[in-house]
Amino acid sequence: MNYGIVLRVLGSILKLEAVLMMPSLCIASYTDQADKIPFLITIILTAALGFFLSFINRKCDRHIGIKEGLVIVSLCWVLASIFGALPLYLSKSTPTYIDAFFEIVSGFTTTGATIIPNVEVLPMGILFWRSFTHWIGGMGILVFTLILLPALGIGGYQIYKFETTGPVAGKIAPKMKDTAKILYGLYLGITILQVILLRVGGMTLFESLVYTFGTVGTGGFATKNASVGAYNSTYIHLVIATFMMLSGVSFSLYYSLVRRKFKEFFGDEELKLYFFILAGAVVAIGINLFFTSYNSLGLAFRDSYFQVSSIMTTTGYTTADFDKWPTFSKAILLLLMVIGGCAGSTAGGMKVIRILVTLKMIKREVLKIFHPRAMSPVRVNTKPLQNETVAGIFSFTSLYLMIFALSTIIVSLQGIDFESAISSVAATLSNIGPGFGFVGPTTTFSSFSPVLKLYLSFLMLIGRLELFTVFALLAPKNWRKEV
Amino acid sequence: MNYGIVLRVLGSILKLEAVLMMPSLCIASYTDQADKIPFLITIILTAALGFFLSFINRKCDRHIGIKEGLVIVSLCWVLASIFGALPLYLSKSTPTYIDAFFEIVSGFTTTGATIIPNVEVLPMGILFWRSFTHWIGGMGILVFTLILLPALGIGGYQIYKFETTGPVAGKIAPKMKDTAKILYGLYLGITILQVILLRVGGMTLFESLVYTFGTVGTGGFATKNASVGAYNSTYIHLVIATFMMLSGVSFSLYYSLVRRKFKEFFGDEELKLYFFILAGAVVAIGINLFFTSYNSLGLAFRDSYFQVSSIMTTTGYTTADFDKWPTFSKAILLLLMVIGGCAGSTAGGMKVIRILVTLKMIKREVLKIFHPRAMSPVRVNTKPLQNETVAGIFSFTSLYLMIFALSTIIVSLQGIDFESAISSVAATLSNIGPGFGFVGPTTTFSSFSPVLKLYLSFLMLIGRLELFTVFALLAPKNWRKEV
Repeated sequence: MNYGIVLRVLGSILKLEAVLMMPSLCIASYTDQADKIPFLITIILTAALGFFLSFINRKCDRHIGIKEGLVIVSLCWVLASIFGALPLYLSKSTPTYIDAFFEIVSGFTTTGATIIPNVEVLPMGILFWRSFTHWIGGMGILVFTLILLPALGIGGYQIYKFETTGPVAGKIAPKMKDTAKILYGLYLGITILQVILLRVGGMTLFESLVYTFGTVGTGGFATKNASVGAYNSTYIHLVIATFMMLSGVSFSLYYSLVRRKFKEFFGDEELKLYFFILAGAVVAIGINLFFTSYNSLGLAFRDSYFQVSSIMTTTGYTTADFDKWPTFSKAILLLLMVIGGCAGSTAGGMKVIRILVTLKMIKREVLKIFHPRAMSPVRVNTKPLQNETVAGIFSFTSLYLMIFALSTIIVSLQGIDFESAISSVAATLSNIGPGFGFVGPTTTFSSFSPVLKLYLSFLMLIGRLELFTVFALLAPKNWRKEV
Repeated sequence: MNYGIVLRVLGSILKLEAVLMMPSLCIASYTDQADKIPFLITIILTAALGFFLSFINRKCDRHIGIKEGLVIVSLCWVLASIFGALPLYLSKSTPTYIDAFFEIVSGFTTTGATIIPNVEVLPMGILFWRSFTHWIGGMGILVFTLILLPALGIGGYQIYKFETTGPVAGKIAPKMKDTAKILYGLYLGITILQVILLRVGGMTLFESLVYTFGTVGTGGFATKNASVGAYNSTYIHLVIATFMMLSGVSFSLYYSLVRRKFKEFFGDEELKLYFFILAGAVVAIGINLFFTSYNSLGLAFRDSYFQVSSIMTTTGYTTADFDKWPTFSKAILLLLMVIGGCAGSTAGGMKVIRILVTLKMIKREVLKIFHPRAMSPVRVNTKPLQNETVAGIFSFTSLYLMIFALSTIIVSLQGIDFESAISSVAATLSNIGPGFGFVGPTTTFSSFSPVLKLYLSFLMLIGRLELFTVFALLAPKNWRKEV
């Protein structure tokens, strides 16, 4: 293990984080609130450690192997959260440091689960920073899932290999930079578009930015306790719902759009299944709401569209207290929490591509009973999948569900009911934010014990890092000797 | 499709069912209760249709292909339930025929879910018949999973191919009969042993038979509303708990024991994982109960052992109202409901072997990240698994969980809470019986709407028939032309 390069890269990430805190410091200074000094102290500390780590490892071996890559990816989210939590703690926005850590892990992992009951009293710099971590985290996850994972072949992400990144290891690095630049451009473009549309709807620039960060990063932190529901404007609801939906689409497809490969975009099987599930859920919940609690079909569908879009893309914004909805609607929402958005988007969850491959595997298995000898490989977008890719998807899906089940058992030690336990695990492991009951849209995660807060933070991280990245590091066998 | 042989075999099954109802008729005649005439009518009707079907198809082509086999297996459970439900309906033991059908499907599939709030007023012939269907169903399932499924290669059951049944299709039939005889002998031996042990514990012969049928078939129908909890005898609790546990072990392993292959028995990886999960759950729940609601550690462990054994083997007998247990214990029980017992036992659920293969796949995937080229196949009991077997297990597991999720959504239309909806699906799809809340140990399935009763009956059937058997028949593609 090349510790030098690991520390050096982590140093660079800390330096970058210090820079990314500058806008929040500016806001804090401009508004002159309790968070001014905390941001200043944090930036100095973060930058100092960053420069120190870079400096003492300036002569290190530049080689980054698989192991180094995994360590860097896993630790950079933890480290960024450890320092990113400082302004919240120092400005007394959260009662304890663990709460601040939970909140910022929730930010960087674009979860949006909060432990702050009243966000409306928070200083503006803190509100901005919380939401900005969504935006940074979302960008990080795009690079991670569209460039790093396909190259390593983890969790079935081989499907998402860009044509531009060849299979030859030596050639990946320079092309990776090009691809990353295009992704950044797309991400920025969508962000600017949404900010403009929200400004048109009457939001202030500050609010437009905060809600856009939460939307395109599929995070969900808000400036109001009632989340988007605080804005009594169908226009704003629809803009945010639509941009959430768009943020759940794989950015590799937007890349196809940019290259004018419209067939590739509209013919994508994952995209079709994504919209099929989304539309089905909107209709089912809309009708269920209309027949149980809503007087207007229009309002039922507006709230259904917003909430389905928010939950399936794992954003977590709310316009209605869906915890009070009938069990039928809630069961659909819970299923959407587990499914999540498309792979290669900022959304969390199991990802639609894995559902797609699973459905195809089931279909093949049924056909095989009658035609045992006429077996063709499972195909996605006409490309046949390798056995290895299918095994990767099988393992990911199983591991996800096992962690889900065991975590529900662990979390139920809090003494909460079953629905709250299962949904608080779904809400964190799939990076959504709110769940049902004890962690419903009108409550927060603040009542969990400190140990469970740390455990749920761990779930947010492994959910975001596609499980295997973290579990590979935890497997003791991998540390016995150098690979 | 060779309809002649299908009808002929179904005719034989009806004739067999008429014979199997004779003991119940004897009991009904001896006790001279309301079920005497109903049994007589049913036996005459069933036998008459059986002879008719056999007679008109006496000159049919004897060839049974895959399609015919699947149709026979699926229809024989439905047909046996349709006629088996008649005595309950005719003796007014259930208010409607759908209720009687639900009850007998629950019997034959060894589920044990009941719609009868007060079983203590039922005529003895009916009580005997209800439980006897567990015993018949259990035997049917052994033959189905240990002989039929491995031969067809469905759902990963290839692992369970008996050494005695060769891969050559022509040679399977005679050896199948030999294997089936050995299975019947083992099943009968275990049954007699348990009856003797329960008699020693002070049960009447009638009760001993009823509870033994429910135990070895992992069914769960009882003669008392309080189930086994009505017997205030630790001896009886322990005997039933232990025989439930033993009934969750693959009968192919008992076959190894008979052939004195002790290494094969004690070295079996599925068996070890089964006992590991079972012991872990008993300890976790026992401690949880002791620290929350029980005064005595001994009683806490006795009830924990009984309930874990009952739920993991999908039997469903109860000695305590586990619906009142803490969420931690209930979450463990729900997970056990999904896992189920060993493949090739009378237990339902996903089966431990599939969990074992899944765990091995996950381990391999983690190791693969660091050693991408040193891939070895997943092995069970040192035998390498074929890609096809793994694909079968992947498809089964995924299909099971998808049906589970969608059924929870459907069942929640009853207007019940989330915990009740999810556990009523688990209780039927995994062939357990009681769940939580609305379908808890002290309540019944009687309040479900007739449509949902039929849907839950369908879940019991597909759960019992390992999903694919039924889904292969439902796939329209398979009917388009002859295969």
